[in-house]
Amino acid sequence: QGILERLDAGEIVIGDGGFVFALERRGYVKAGPWTPEATVEHPEAVRQLHREFLRAGSDVLQTFTFYASEDKLENRGNYVAEKISCNKVNEAACDIAREVADGGDALVAGGVSQTPSYLSCKDKTEVKAVFRKQLDVFVKKNVDFLIAEYFEHVEEAVWAVEVLKESGKPVAATMCIGPEGDMHGVSPGQCAVQLVKAGASIVGVNCHFDSEISLETVRLMKEGLQAAKLKAHLMCQPLAFHTPDCGKQGFIDLPEFPFGLEPRIATRWDIQKYARKAYDLGIRYIGGCCGFEPYHIRAISEELAPERGFLPEASEKHGSWGDNLSMHTKPWVRARARKEYWENLKPASGRPYCPSMSKPDGWGVTKGAKELMQQKEATTDQQLKEVFQKKK
Amino acid sequence: QGILERLDAGEIVIGDGGFVFALERRGYVKAGPWTPEATVEHPEAVRQLHREFLRAGSDVLQTFTFYASEDKLENRGNYVAEKISCNKVNEAACDIAREVADGGDALVAGGVSQTPSYLSCKDKTEVKAVFRKQLDVFVKKNVDFLIAEYFEHVEEAVWAVEVLKESGKPVAATMCIGPEGDMHGVSPGQCAVQLVKAGASIVGVNCHFDSEISLETVRLMKEGLQAAKLKAHLMCQPLAFHTPDCGKQGFIDLPEFPFGLEPRIATRWDIQKYARKAYDLGIRYIGGCCGFEPYHIRAISEELAPERGFLPEASEKHGSWGDNLSMHTKPWVRARARKEYWENLKPASGRPYCPSMSKPDGWGVTKGAKELMQQKEATTDQQLKEVFQKKK
Amino acid sequence: QGILERLDAGEIVIGDGGFVFALERRGYVKAGPWTPEATVEHPEAVRQLHREFLRAGSDVLQTFTFYASEDKLENRGNYVAEKISCNKVNEAACDIAREVADGGDALVAGGVSQTPSYLSCKDKTEVKAVFRKQLDVFVKKNVDFLIAEYFEHVEEAVWAVEVLKESGKPVAATMCIGPEGDMHGVSPGQCAVQLVKAGASIVGVNCHFDSEISLETVRLMKEGLQAAKLKAHLMCQPLAFHTPDCGKQGFIDLPEFPFGLEPRIATRWDIQKYARKAYDLGIRYIGGCCGFEPYHIRAISEELAPERGFLPEASEKHGSWGDNLSMHTKPWVRARARKEYWENLKPASGRPYCPSMSKPDGWGVTKGAKELMQQKEATTDQQLKEVFQKKK
Amino acid sequence: QGILERLDAGEIVIGDGGFVFALERRGYVKAGPWTPEATVEHPEAVRQLHREFLRAGSDVLQTFTFYASEDKLENRGNYVAEKISCNKVNEAACDIAREVADGGDALVAGGVSQTPSYLSCKDKTEVKAVFRKQLDVFVKKNVDFLIAEYFEHVEEAVWAVEVLKESGKPVAATMCIGPEGDMHGVSPGQCAVQLVKAGASIVGVNCHFDSEISLETVRLMKEGLQAAKLKAHLMCQPLAFHTPDCGKQGFIDLPEFPFGLEPRIATRWDIQKYARKAYDLGIRYIGGCCGFEPYHIRAISEELAPERGFLPEASEKHGSWGDNLSMHTKPWVRARARKEYWENLKPASGRPYCPSMSKPDGWGVTKGAKELMQQKEATTDQQLKEVFQKKK
Repeated sequence: QGILERLDAGEIVIGDGGFVFALERRGYVKAGPWTPEATVEHPEAVRQLHREFLRAGSDVLQTFTFYASEDKLENRGNYVAEKISCNKVNEAACDIAREVADGGDALVAGGVSQTPSYLSCKDKTEVKAVFRKQLDVFVKKNVDFLIAEYFEHVEEAVWAVEVLKESGKPVAATMCIGPEGDMHGVSPGQCAVQLVKAGASIVGVNCHFDSEISLETVRLMKEGLQAAKLKAHLMCQPLAFHTPDCGKQGFIDLPEFPFGLEPRIATRWDIQKYARKAYDLGIRYIGGCCGFEPYHIRAISEELAPERGFLPEASEKHGSWGDNLSMHTKPWVRARARKEYWENLKPASGRPYCPSMSKPDGWGVTKGAKELMQQKEATTDQQLKEVFQKKK
Repeated sequence: QGILERLDAGEIVIGDGGFVFALERRGYVKAGPWTPEATVEHPEAVRQLHREFLRAGSDVLQTFTFYASEDKLENRGNYVAEKISCNKVNEAACDIAREVADGGDALVAGGVSQTPSYLSCKDKTEVKAVFRKQLDVFVKKNVDFLIAEYFEHVEEAVWAVEVLKESGKPVAATMCIGPEGDMHGVSPGQCAVQLVKAGASIVGVNCHFDSEISLETVRLMKEGLQAAKLKAHLMCQPLAFHTPDCGKQGFIDLPEFPFGLEPRIATRWDIQKYARKAYDLGIRYIGGCCGFEPYHIRAISEELAPERGFLPEASEKHGSWGDNLSMHTKPWVRARARKEYWENLKPASGRPYCPSMSKPDGWGVTKGAKELMQQKEATTDQQLKEVFQKKK
Repeated sequence: QGILERLDAGEIVIGDGGFVFALERRGYVKAGPWTPEATVEHPEAVRQLHREFLRAGSDVLQTFTFYASEDKLENRGNYVAEKISCNKVNEAACDIAREVADGGDALVAGGVSQTPSYLSCKDKTEVKAVFRKQLDVFVKKNVDFLIAEYFEHVEEAVWAVEVLKESGKPVAATMCIGPEGDMHGVSPGQCAVQLVKAGASIVGVNCHFDSEISLETVRLMKEGLQAAKLKAHLMCQPLAFHTPDCGKQGFIDLPEFPFGLEPRIATRWDIQKYARKAYDLGIRYIGGCCGFEPYHIRAISEELAPERGFLPEASEKHGSWGDNLSMHTKPWVRARARKEYWENLKPASGRPYCPSMSKPDGWGVTKGAKELMQQKEATTDQQLKEVFQKKK
Repeated sequence: QGILERLDAGEIVIGDGGFVFALERRGYVKAGPWTPEATVEHPEAVRQLHREFLRAGSDVLQTFTFYASEDKLENRGNYVAEKISCNKVNEAACDIAREVADGGDALVAGGVSQTPSYLSCKDKTEVKAVFRKQLDVFVKKNVDFLIAEYFEHVEEAVWAVEVLKESGKPVAATMCIGPEGDMHGVSPGQCAVQLVKAGASIVGVNCHFDSEISLETVRLMKEGLQAAKLKAHLMCQPLAFHTPDCGKQGFIDLPEFPFGLEPRIATRWDIQKYARKAYDLGIRYIGGCCGFEPYHIRAISEELAPERGFLPEASEKHGSWGDNLSMHTKPWVRARARKEYWENLKPASGRPYCPSMSKPDGWGVTKGAKELMQQKEATTDQQLKEVFQKKK
């Protein structure tokens, strides 16, 4: 059954986790460029991660094509051997995802994300051509549906949706925004409305913020759609990092990004709470983004097992709410084998010299900055630099 | 070249990371029993993790035989299908490690760890028989050397070393203790002396404590050996969790163990500091235990690259000290592309409602408890229970 | 010169600090009732605190008449001997303040605050009679001006202003609200407008929130007045406790109120920052409320000494920005004798088992609660109780 | 009854709190020099603080003669008008303390503390002459007993005790040390032994460390005395600041000293726990030092009221364990009116950008530094400077 059949029938669809962060930690992706040439260079590593998410309960395997547009790969050229073409990266990603998905009951989703072309002010035709190049591969490889994800500007996301719709396949669209809206100041509600009008059947958010903030953003999207009398399925794929201290542009501006985020990693219990809240808010496509490891996805599957009626395969290696500790030799460890314990635990950081919150870098939080950010021009690299230097 | 040739020549030997924690998160090991039947059930998952450590710079691949003694596997019998015998688990572990090691210049080490037989007061002959059963596999599969690791009682560790020495292969021995010594009250210095006298060529610590505490313990071992005029190579494989608040039995007694440890996870920069301190202390076998992911091992390799003269393969996907951020579009993210930045960062937890330290559970820290712990009998499950109930 | 002459001339007027908290710690006020019978019982203690504020730079000494309305004193009857009448408490407060003020150049302000009569739904006539009884004393004792302070409902504050204006003296009015507005849902801007229309020449906030939140509330008041084309002087007297985690009703709902607030106490440097920000926002009546000790008021005086042209008397015992540490025997303590050091210090709590933020008690932060709070009826004791019990 | 009669009879003696810190905050003492010329300049402020401690339950009022030796006052000469002689300061201190003590049942104790003469290597005769000059005043004013307090070197403390003993009055002696012992490396046990042999009837610690660390130090003193078969009463007057992160020289080396210590201030409940622990350890002279305000002393009196049989006067304004909150209008505030609540509260700092622990400044914690510190010469200013500069 396709994605829309499932969602229309009221089923919960569990997404997968974050590839670039997980594979960076495993040694196959470079932080900074974050490009997915590993699909060609180390297919076994990509395949294994897909397998783990499938085993953890993912109903959708996204092709590992994040930042795999031609302009991005060229832009980061030094990281990609000449011989690894954009097409090869995207084709290999489709093949690997399909191979693993066929070992279960999962769908394959081809994904596109924001482009350097848009940020450097190329026009609509040029930007759309970039998306279309990836779409050609997805159509050829016959993925089950398409996702436009990780967009900071709804304008570009709309263009992506329009291109993806050309295929006739269902399209989901997520933005990496918080409750303050996109970088041009469009509110979450308005973003959702524009995406649905452009053809998206599923809308929501991914990345940049933790689950609390992301759920609030989806809630605003839902309100926007209701006000506009539009219907769409809702989707949420947040970070597995706690980011209560973010500014408008999310975790990228936190001083810890991307190499000091460990103390912020969510526990499995944090994720169970997220899954429940997402469900209660009416979201039915529930997954994760950066920081989500297989055990986080399993936590979603376990939390929603009563609704879904089954546990994922990986739960054969996991007791519900720690019940596998009931055999421990120490009585006080056995005492941890219960829901109430883990639900109420306030985990310590073991870092008494570190604070609990950071001030975001940049001028993402200042008023003047917000105004600048709302002018598209200021977001090009050279201009940002100038503004930053002036500020100093 | 064998392990002793390398160490005798003054080379640095980089160990691997923690299998049970990494595979638990990937969905293949059950927390609680922590047994390695995945070598038979999901060899591809074990193989992939070995590959990642090799790629990150590990010079030694330990067979995934932690808690794979026959008595442990039986004790946890419900988790292991009848048909997965102890021998099969150990043999598969050797085969997988060897296959991956041959793709590089790594050694394979067969490992044994503490047994339920010892804790339930079986005698020396019986306990040694348990170790011998695993050793037979290691000899048959011709591993390069042997490690007796994760012992809380030096008495049992000595027995393990004596058995492993029967093979004629080099033996390393590590204990999961802190500066207060083993569970019977034997000091780290005395532990080291007894292990070397029993035949270990390499001694040190693994697991249970963070790198700061573990290094202090190895320092005490070094002092003990010097006082006794004994020579041995030093080894350290700590947790990748910050545990300044541990009691005598380490992280197991922390309320967060094992499902809420995320805020304590070390950054790569924490690990670089650890690698440098370990090196400065004269330790030459430097690795990790629970919590160490491939990127943590890479951090050791990168920190000691000047001494070793080369970077690991995985560094092709990692800039030194974040230098790959120098291409970022945001100037303030580019400003993070330098050593000074990451060295001085005090990462926030994003958890303002959580404390930085926890009080250990149990009576590991009370005076009466220490005395009880020093009586071997008290460590059997039934007696612990009684004592605990009385205390209540 | 009177208060309005000073403010109209552009002078900065420095208020005093918090009497009930300071005298509770000194042993003369009971937390809970918070009534000021100490003016009769222990005049020397009240006199000494006034002296300290005057010496620290206060231009206004408020009579210690907080919660000294007849209905409040009766309501808390068991704490006040029969012979200590409402009139006696208020008269003694006036005499003490005047005696001390005459030793400097300070003004005496008579103050009234919210009443039990209003909370128990007495009508306007009755509530006004309560204020009038105190006002009679203030007129008889000829205070310099009047302050209506610590009101949670603008309706009651307006009634108080109307009564105080009968005297012909200048009236200031402050509310103990945050940016969300009063307990009936009236916004800060609207509150300010109503107070000015009722006759207040000075408006602002006091108590319940820290300086950051209080300044934001005054900013909203300022915007409200500008929008309504009204003119008034602005006043701010916040807590000297950090309360970023407050709900709508401020620090009373924090679990630490009132006996565990110590870790939240502001440093003198925090207060210097507050004074500067208040000044920059156009506020010219700058003081403090609960938690403000004499050294906090001195910090305001020192920060604004360049604008005022003089230091307070108490600065003879205080070096600017720690410069009196320059004679210390330890070089690293001498290194603290500079502004940059104290400005950037992030002071540790010495409490590694405590979090940095708390969740407010009650239902002050929930949505349903907000609605309830907006119905005046729900704020009577009995009804609160019922609602609370239903919630459980 | 005298101090020894009380202690010999098994009575608890409650000391007073910290004058220099309390009066610094009230505007009468300058941080840095910390000298007590306020006895002459502002006797009413000193008198009021004495009154508050008496009212809070202090059985002893110490003359405010801290750092009032002639060499110290001269050394800090610029802070003391020429006409305020050492004798005048000490005499006024005695008169004020006596006047207040006579209003209750309190004893007056004359106090001397460490001298610049000792630190600049003057010989025994010269240092003793400095103490004798203060003693002459104490004898003339007929104080009830004498305290030698705030000594970092036991050698100087012994000289002080020897001088004070010349008066024939009982002598108490406290050192400002932690478990590591004095600045020359003499252990707490040895310090206690030397002080008792020199004639002290009461020994213990004051200042520099929090109650936990101070109690541990007194415990070591007690063990030392027992081992030496000596008898003496025990005394403890710690800081009211949490300092788990101190080095050997205590809170002076913490980056927050002295102007950023607020987040470390103990609650009344912390102090009740301290009083109980001190009592259980056999300490019978229980008071406080820097940071102790009247309400902290009241907390000692209230905790030990069952043993003492009475409450202090100030308790008429304080409900036991918050019971005065039982009349609050909000049910959740009423819920705080119980011991269990306050005992278990983990108070938040309201400072999410601050850590819970600091690294001490200086080289107090390094090994080389400890060795240097043990050489008396290194503690003179010039040499410290050189060492410090070399280190840089």
